[in-house]
Amino acid sequence: MKPGRISALTIIGVGLIGGSLARALRRADAVGTITGVGRSLEQLEKARALGVIDRIETDAARAVAGADVVVLCVPLLAMEDLLRTIAPALEPGTVVTDAGSAKGSVVEAARRHLGDRLADFVPGHPIAGTEKSGVEASFAGLYDDRLVILTPLAETSPASAARIEQMWRAAGAEVVSMDVERHDRVLAATSHLPHMLAYGLVDCLARMQESEEIFRFAAGGFADFTRIASSSPEMWHDICFSNRKALLDVLDRFGDHLAEIRRAVEQGDSAALLRIFTRAKNARDSFVLARRKRGS
Amino acid sequence: MKPGRISALTIIGVGLIGGSLARALRRADAVGTITGVGRSLEQLEKARALGVIDRIETDAARAVAGADVVVLCVPLLAMEDLLRTIAPALEPGTVVTDAGSAKGSVVEAARRHLGDRLADFVPGHPIAGTEKSGVEASFAGLYDDRLVILTPLAETSPASAARIEQMWRAAGAEVVSMDVERHDRVLAATSHLPHMLAYGLVDCLARMQESEEIFRFAAGGFADFTRIASSSPEMWHDICFSNRKALLDVLDRFGDHLAEIRRAVEQGDSAALLRIFTRAKNARDSFVLARRKRGS
Repeated sequence: MKPGRISALTIIGVGLIGGSLARALRRADAVGTITGVGRSLEQLEKARALGVIDRIETDAARAVAGADVVVLCVPLLAMEDLLRTIAPALEPGTVVTDAGSAKGSVVEAARRHLGDRLADFVPGHPIAGTEKSGVEASFAGLYDDRLVILTPLAETSPASAARIEQMWRAAGAEVVSMDVERHDRVLAATSHLPHMLAYGLVDCLARMQESEEIFRFAAGGFADFTRIASSSPEMWHDICFSNRKALLDVLDRFGDHLAEIRRAVEQGDSAALLRIFTRAKNARDSFVLARRKRGS
Repeated sequence: MKPGRISALTIIGVGLIGGSLARALRRADAVGTITGVGRSLEQLEKARALGVIDRIETDAARAVAGADVVVLCVPLLAMEDLLRTIAPALEPGTVVTDAGSAKGSVVEAARRHLGDRLADFVPGHPIAGTEKSGVEASFAGLYDDRLVILTPLAETSPASAARIEQMWRAAGAEVVSMDVERHDRVLAATSHLPHMLAYGLVDCLARMQESEEIFRFAAGGFADFTRIASSSPEMWHDICFSNRKALLDVLDRFGDHLAEIRRAVEQGDSAALLRIFTRAKNARDSFVLARRKRGS
């Protein structure tokens, strides 16, 4: 057996994220048996038919018994109930991690329910995804060269953190660690805020009188800009409430910036407008360059 | 000679838009000699070396003499000076069009300077482009299956409008007509506003304390969302001031929508948030479907 290979893996929530992790670990021969847990038997059967999971289980507590690693890939607002359910069934040595897009709320729930099992809890967030959801959309390469952020707690044991790090590396990702608050602040800025803007823009246009015509004349830039507005409303609803403080903070910050642009347009302030646009273009061009260097 | 073939075409401003039009018309064998006009001799020589234009001219008035069709592809705020310069040199029968992203300001300038030549002026706007600029970025397929909006005036002769329509069809585009005000309102919503949001977001993040780290953790969605923030600041500066009224109007409308989202996040209004996200997702999904049907 390969060192670090996971004999028994339980994935709770087998959609795009969980399903892609399963496929990636299989590709790397880094996993033995994968048990998939979910509310919809139909979805689980689809996952098994696709070869993503080996065993189907609808009872989460039963599914974590005997697992080496348990990965929670359920919507953020379902995490607390799930942690409450599985806590009594976790065996010594089982490491638990999650893939939630906000970390503060998950960590709070874990503190409430995992008790002395916190040493084996490694909060995590793979920075990957598409606007699609469901196991049909999952693929083995989703995490290739992508970043996974772990936010280990003071209580998390180094061995447990290392095990989850190893798992994500086997799935193709690069792993970094940071503290929970910083994660939530950074993600509010780079991911949660842009989703609000994309949803807000499309909804704004859809509610204009000439909406049908308006969309007809939208070009490629608009399609790119609004891709993330095709993401799951339920998932983003949960993210908003799970990272409320940091999200409100960047929403206000962005509002100030937009007001600055509006003022410059209204008052014909050429210099201010050129300054803002140029600074943004430079920052965006550097970002693209850095991404290219990283190969993603 | 093909019917509708343009013997002598003059393109003023040989960048992405003008250069791609030249290439597309050559591909269709719909043009004879192309004269390119610009301020930078170096850029014009590059365009000639690339086979995009045949003749170089730095004097716009001299370049329009003898042309069948003149296409103005200069920045919006340069249109008025250009129209003033070429007006006395236009020969009877020469049709003038432009490719400006806002139409009201160009039409006003044309009314001031073209006088009784308005019958041969056909304001236009190809809804195509990339975040790149310059003749190096031009390519023959830029207009394939894209829309070109013409906003003919009451004075525009049907023959002139037909000639420009034929030109864009030969370049691969689909041509539609609408009035100037509607064009500016629709484009403010689908193009000018999204650019403000993308520039505003990237600038907002670039000015945050942890900006370097923030960009490091941005994923693919962010790259798509901000692609348009890599567009030319000078060009967008001009667009803002040329379509100021319609842009301020959609900025305010969007501000109201964002405030609605903010309020729902702050007050934990699940129903409102789900309603907004779902409506946006549905509108965006329909938009993508319609685009696919159109084949673009």
